[in-house]
Amino acid sequence: MKEIIAVVRMNMMNRTKQALTDAGVDAFFANEAQGRGKGLVDSKVLEGAGAGYEEAVELLGERGKLYSKRIVTAVVPTEDVDDVVKAIVAANKTGKPGDGKIFVVPVGDAVRVRTGETGAASIV
Amino acid sequence: MKEIIAVVRMNMMNRTKQALTDAGVDAFFANEAQGRGKGLVDSKVLEGAGAGYEEAVELLGERGKLYSKRIVTAVVPTEDVDDVVKAIVAANKTGKPGDGKIFVVPVGDAVRVRTGETGAASIV
Amino acid sequence: MKEIIAVVRMNMMNRTKQALTDAGVDAFFANEAQGRGKGLVDSKVLEGAGAGYEEAVELLGERGKLYSKRIVTAVVPTEDVDDVVKAIVAANKTGKPGDGKIFVVPVGDAVRVRTGETGAASIV
Repeated sequence: MKEIIAVVRMNMMNRTKQALTDAGVDAFFANEAQGRGKGLVDSKVLEGAGAGYEEAVELLGERGKLYSKRIVTAVVPTEDVDDVVKAIVAANKTGKPGDGKIFVVPVGDAVRVRTGETGAASIV
Repeated sequence: MKEIIAVVRMNMMNRTKQALTDAGVDAFFANEAQGRGKGLVDSKVLEGAGAGYEEAVELLGERGKLYSKRIVTAVVPTEDVDDVVKAIVAANKTGKPGDGKIFVVPVGDAVRVRTGETGAASIV
Repeated sequence: MKEIIAVVRMNMMNRTKQALTDAGVDAFFANEAQGRGKGLVDSKVLEGAGAGYEEAVELLGERGKLYSKRIVTAVVPTEDVDDVVKAIVAANKTGKPGDGKIFVVPVGDAVRVRTGETGAASIV
């Protein structure tokens, strides 16, 4: 099984939640963090600023600035990782800087506290 | 060494903290997240709602609802993982939906900033 | 690639942010957590309390107390891990209890949502 950690825009939480549910992911948690991506030196940011995108303009203006992001974490069976990642991408891709990142981390085991179930049985 | 990530009820934080301490885990951190488990389609939830458990009733009533949870994270030596997981389960198991999940994630290395110690020496 | 999770003092966030930027890490996120380290039974704490360090005195006085900490998370190429860890240590080491911990966790894959890039291309 794998832990999927998605860093998404604050206002994409509902879309991400729906995408996870549609992809069959029933269990996840989310919290808020301050962060930033590489955007600053990315030509896309310059394009974005030229096109008037607010986030891109802000990125140019203040190098160290951190943005509020949602960090969504789900643990899913390994065979579902690709579908879940695709669902998160589809829900969050706008093509503008700040769309976010997804990390896939190996998980050794999981336990459902109520039943003591471990392994795959505990997460599906 | 392993990272143990436990998703527990908000009001179980003190019990969990005590359980970790009793299990010899001196270092951990915790934060708050919004989440939900699989409970909705689980027969236990129906039973729970029938028995009047508030959380189960709420699960049935509002599919997308997220609950506030504590996420407790500790990094422990691999040989201690089973005992620590058992201690967290024992502290958090009520048998009702919402008892939480525990994930065990491999950790490559750890560093104690004050001394520069790495590996097992840095976490015990 | 690896996930680097650094637990640092709240008031070290700016120094840590600068250290990460100087080490070439452009993407990271941070949030707040409550935690504690092993400090209590550490001779350094006794020394620290003897020397009047406030944190050490507090550690002696109240065993279960949790402190607010910043948890800084970055995903970096494996070959950069050592340099980034050293940079975080250098920025946070005061020699007093409470300097923090750094954990290095293997990451299976990463995805940049905007472009769909995966692997190393998505984090550099």
